[in-house]
Amino acid sequence: MVITLKAGTTEKGIEHVVEKIKELGFTPHISHGEERVIIGVIGENAIRSREIFEAMFIVDSVMPISRPYKLVSREFKGEATVVEVKDVKVGGNEVVVMAGPCAVENREQLLEIASQVKEAGAKILRGGAFKPRSSPYSFQGLGEEGLKYLAEVSKITELPVVTEAMDPRQVELVIRYADMVQVGARNMQNFDLLKEVGRSRKPVLLKRGMASTLKEFLMSAEYILSSGNYNVILCERGIRTFEDATRFTLDLSTLSLIKELSHLPVIADPSHATGKRSLVASMANAAIAAGSDGLMIEVHSRPEEALSDGFQSLTPPDFRKLMRRMRSIAKALGRKA
Amino acid sequence: MVITLKAGTTEKGIEHVVEKIKELGFTPHISHGEERVIIGVIGENAIRSREIFEAMFIVDSVMPISRPYKLVSREFKGEATVVEVKDVKVGGNEVVVMAGPCAVENREQLLEIASQVKEAGAKILRGGAFKPRSSPYSFQGLGEEGLKYLAEVSKITELPVVTEAMDPRQVELVIRYADMVQVGARNMQNFDLLKEVGRSRKPVLLKRGMASTLKEFLMSAEYILSSGNYNVILCERGIRTFEDATRFTLDLSTLSLIKELSHLPVIADPSHATGKRSLVASMANAAIAAGSDGLMIEVHSRPEEALSDGFQSLTPPDFRKLMRRMRSIAKALGRKA
Amino acid sequence: MVITLKAGTTEKGIEHVVEKIKELGFTPHISHGEERVIIGVIGENAIRSREIFEAMFIVDSVMPISRPYKLVSREFKGEATVVEVKDVKVGGNEVVVMAGPCAVENREQLLEIASQVKEAGAKILRGGAFKPRSSPYSFQGLGEEGLKYLAEVSKITELPVVTEAMDPRQVELVIRYADMVQVGARNMQNFDLLKEVGRSRKPVLLKRGMASTLKEFLMSAEYILSSGNYNVILCERGIRTFEDATRFTLDLSTLSLIKELSHLPVIADPSHATGKRSLVASMANAAIAAGSDGLMIEVHSRPEEALSDGFQSLTPPDFRKLMRRMRSIAKALGRKA
Amino acid sequence: MVITLKAGTTEKGIEHVVEKIKELGFTPHISHGEERVIIGVIGENAIRSREIFEAMFIVDSVMPISRPYKLVSREFKGEATVVEVKDVKVGGNEVVVMAGPCAVENREQLLEIASQVKEAGAKILRGGAFKPRSSPYSFQGLGEEGLKYLAEVSKITELPVVTEAMDPRQVELVIRYADMVQVGARNMQNFDLLKEVGRSRKPVLLKRGMASTLKEFLMSAEYILSSGNYNVILCERGIRTFEDATRFTLDLSTLSLIKELSHLPVIADPSHATGKRSLVASMANAAIAAGSDGLMIEVHSRPEEALSDGFQSLTPPDFRKLMRRMRSIAKALGRKA
Repeated sequence: MVITLKAGTTEKGIEHVVEKIKELGFTPHISHGEERVIIGVIGENAIRSREIFEAMFIVDSVMPISRPYKLVSREFKGEATVVEVKDVKVGGNEVVVMAGPCAVENREQLLEIASQVKEAGAKILRGGAFKPRSSPYSFQGLGEEGLKYLAEVSKITELPVVTEAMDPRQVELVIRYADMVQVGARNMQNFDLLKEVGRSRKPVLLKRGMASTLKEFLMSAEYILSSGNYNVILCERGIRTFEDATRFTLDLSTLSLIKELSHLPVIADPSHATGKRSLVASMANAAIAAGSDGLMIEVHSRPEEALSDGFQSLTPPDFRKLMRRMRSIAKALGRKA
Repeated sequence: MVITLKAGTTEKGIEHVVEKIKELGFTPHISHGEERVIIGVIGENAIRSREIFEAMFIVDSVMPISRPYKLVSREFKGEATVVEVKDVKVGGNEVVVMAGPCAVENREQLLEIASQVKEAGAKILRGGAFKPRSSPYSFQGLGEEGLKYLAEVSKITELPVVTEAMDPRQVELVIRYADMVQVGARNMQNFDLLKEVGRSRKPVLLKRGMASTLKEFLMSAEYILSSGNYNVILCERGIRTFEDATRFTLDLSTLSLIKELSHLPVIADPSHATGKRSLVASMANAAIAAGSDGLMIEVHSRPEEALSDGFQSLTPPDFRKLMRRMRSIAKALGRKA
Repeated sequence: MVITLKAGTTEKGIEHVVEKIKELGFTPHISHGEERVIIGVIGENAIRSREIFEAMFIVDSVMPISRPYKLVSREFKGEATVVEVKDVKVGGNEVVVMAGPCAVENREQLLEIASQVKEAGAKILRGGAFKPRSSPYSFQGLGEEGLKYLAEVSKITELPVVTEAMDPRQVELVIRYADMVQVGARNMQNFDLLKEVGRSRKPVLLKRGMASTLKEFLMSAEYILSSGNYNVILCERGIRTFEDATRFTLDLSTLSLIKELSHLPVIADPSHATGKRSLVASMANAAIAAGSDGLMIEVHSRPEEALSDGFQSLTPPDFRKLMRRMRSIAKALGRKA
Repeated sequence: MVITLKAGTTEKGIEHVVEKIKELGFTPHISHGEERVIIGVIGENAIRSREIFEAMFIVDSVMPISRPYKLVSREFKGEATVVEVKDVKVGGNEVVVMAGPCAVENREQLLEIASQVKEAGAKILRGGAFKPRSSPYSFQGLGEEGLKYLAEVSKITELPVVTEAMDPRQVELVIRYADMVQVGARNMQNFDLLKEVGRSRKPVLLKRGMASTLKEFLMSAEYILSSGNYNVILCERGIRTFEDATRFTLDLSTLSLIKELSHLPVIADPSHATGKRSLVASMANAAIAAGSDGLMIEVHSRPEEALSDGFQSLTPPDFRKLMRRMRSIAKALGRKA
């Protein structure tokens, strides 16, 4: 941590800061610049005391040197983590695709779509039973009934299932039926939910919040790991920017940078990111080329009749086409798909 | 709702859309433009069927005409809502200031600060018992112990108390001790929490999410109202933008626009918005000038020793100065403070 | 400047960096942290060599300690600069309002509006002769004809005139007719234009780019000052964010922070920032409360017939009302208006 | 264009709007909704009169139906445009890479890098002679001397050359030496510069502004085409967002959407977008997978000694590796590279 003092700080002021640093058990290193004094603070986790110094009137700014996250970092664990969702490995050499409808609507719909995505090469079935909707008047999901259909269809198709829990009170229920729990973008900083899925040992799919920085995203994963659950898959799903030609802006450079900084697997969700059917395939390709370990894709047999997000859902034939193209890119990169 | 069809859509395609509109019980109005056909869809809540049309391959775009929220709108209720927090009225002619420490640290600290902010003119005491922190390693609040101190200090000082609930499971507990429940920015789209506070009748302070649009903000309030609780105060606390010279960007034009579009009271939180002690007073002034019904301000007797957000906390003397200036602006606008 | 080396950098690597620092004439200060080595670089303008170090493979990051701007900073000149536009002083105790039509349309229109804004208390006349329009098919301004009307109306009303130059080749012409040259938001980093207005001695109104940070804004002003022209007024006119309920987001916390960091006068343009007539007055009030030295307001006698931006223009009666309210706020803050 | 009137508008108000529409030569289509009246306006270029209606007090909003650009759109010209830069075709089946140093520093440096990028497969040489720098104290480029080196090295290596013009007065000079003129991100809305390059017939590389929407980007291209120059290549180079882990956010979904909406070739610049050497290759791959027609990459033999942006420049060996990988992706997509 580096503390910069305001121009014109007196010797007494400098001493006050130095005293505090020592009191906290850290070592100060003072450099007198042309205009300002800067003080390096050495010691493990010094940054956690950041606010103490930021609150001082003579301090201009405090800059972290070490990163605020630890368990999720490459420096803590150099080797890539492979998360096993039942028998499907995410984070290894194989690119893994999770596909299915946005919301579970009924048993028949789910079984039909599941069979089709499996045939096309998807390895995990997605489908929402609890749906976070910005309007209280929109379809909110089938709840436990939806979870039952997911479990049933999972058994028939032998596809493991991922579905979202929105409320800490739902986690136990979701875990009973699903093979992986999703924490949605709107809940990325729902810290009680993070702790709750952290106490379980089921794999967690953590989606990036639409306005969260890379650091905050990794810190939210750190919540889960520090609660004892190391089975975390990260998912880039688009950030909110000024550009409104697409629903969100898929941030693939951050995805790529996460692969550098963290050992956790990372996948991309081009369906929610773009909100536009015609862009899903090209963004799926781009994500794989950027180093993504997998994809999450919405597929619906009759997008026009979908109860949720139909306009970004692919039809099964579109999905088959996407899989073919994506596979040839994965191969060009030396990955299996 | 206005549906624009893609250029080159056939008569059969147009008919398909028209059929669907009628099937849903709405009335279509067709206009043939130079290049495209647009279809107005008339009928209450037509927009809720938006996705059905967006999913159609021949549809270029769907634009809402009516607003998606209803209960919170000025069109539903023209007169300004006044929310009563115990005996303090928010949303009327008087500008109401809520002040106190970011986090409750102990009984003495809280009582000292509460007395000081009361003396300076604050009408409601703020203080966090459950703290949403981006790092799992930061101080997470005192929990129920903190709530007890809040209730005790409220009794002594006769200031009503507002404090945050982060988890639907905490709402009942928080309500037992506090006079108003805060839903924090990170939980603005925690829909289960919104429903939970909506089932209570205690006033709710709903903070705007850092990446939420005006529409989404009002939709989240709509969740609470549609659950039966009309006692909602909105709080603008800064949005996330590219500008990193301040922690967030206080969005006063949206605050002002909300006053136009909604009957609910709106206040501003310049402490969290700026993250900089030296900017709190000028942004407090600006918020009042923009039409804010009140302020939420962090005050700490010894900011340097605060366990949370000390660098944006005012000292009691700074707070007194802020109150004086702010009052003269309120008066210039014909408001009491 | 503080250089952080990557974890695991060898002694030889450290030496390489240290050598380079010395070679450039600066003094290195090394601190060995738990995980990383950081090196403080002391010496005037060390930051200008930033890129040399950022390009080194063993360097993790380079952080500036001194600010990149100098002439515009409070540390260079503590006292507030007062810019004189003919006999109107901007940056002193008096709040100065510049008003007029977005575009000059003809002599009569301009004279009518100028007389009305003068009567209401405006001290400087604004009006565009060269208009930056995002569409090549929109009205592009009257050019020199417009400048002539401005000069003529200025003579009649005795209001000094500010108008925009978009092209370095226009500066000479604009200066001949106007009392202050405006550099628009889209040209804030048109460096040749900045140098051109810097070579003149006429006051310059520099608008903030819609995506420019505080630092970049001040650096653009630094271009003008370092070319020899110290008569610069800054103008906050809204930044581009995800919020589309208003055209831009008026960033008053940055305006307030600029007053702290720079000695230059700063004004606000609530008309362009909000793009909404109904918000202009409340944002004008808020800007003054935030410490703005003045305002730039669009006024049009018949907004419905304006050739440019009519929907954000106030009518003369609206403008008079705004001036009354704004004045009472300025007085509450101890300023003249 | 669709005009929505405010709730409660009287019959007289509606008539007033209808009259105006007819007066302008357009045809109104009225639909009476539950709460509001909407009026479709039919007629070529009706949207150019948008502001007239937006300025009316009874109008709630005006929505465009037709797109504001014409010459650049797929609807105007269905077939993809292929721009010839000397004998290199951009926009066809072959992926074209432009590479070279950020700034031209001297003849030897340029010749060395040019030879190396050519050998690795680059088809066009890039290099800046006029450099837009946010600081007036940074290296501003060699000017005409740099142009001469570019022309000379182009002759030797037989690589066509692209370089930036920042000022309308430089266009003539740049054209004399270079094969393609670049309009940089900071000048995307420097309309006089756009007109100037539009009057020439030399190919133009137009970079997207860091805060410009897709629409504004295409409108800036429209400026060039409507001035008579159809040889425009678009370049996505990252937009400014809240994420500061990378310098900008490369917006590949917009790149992909531009390919849908416009017939012009589009390339990506991963060097400037990420500002980080380690991310250039993965973003180059992602851009090609997203449908980009080419790439612009910074290469420097000794990045540590570069006078500009060395930290994002690849070394020649890194560039060769990038080319190999990128080619295999291009082939997987059926493109030549």
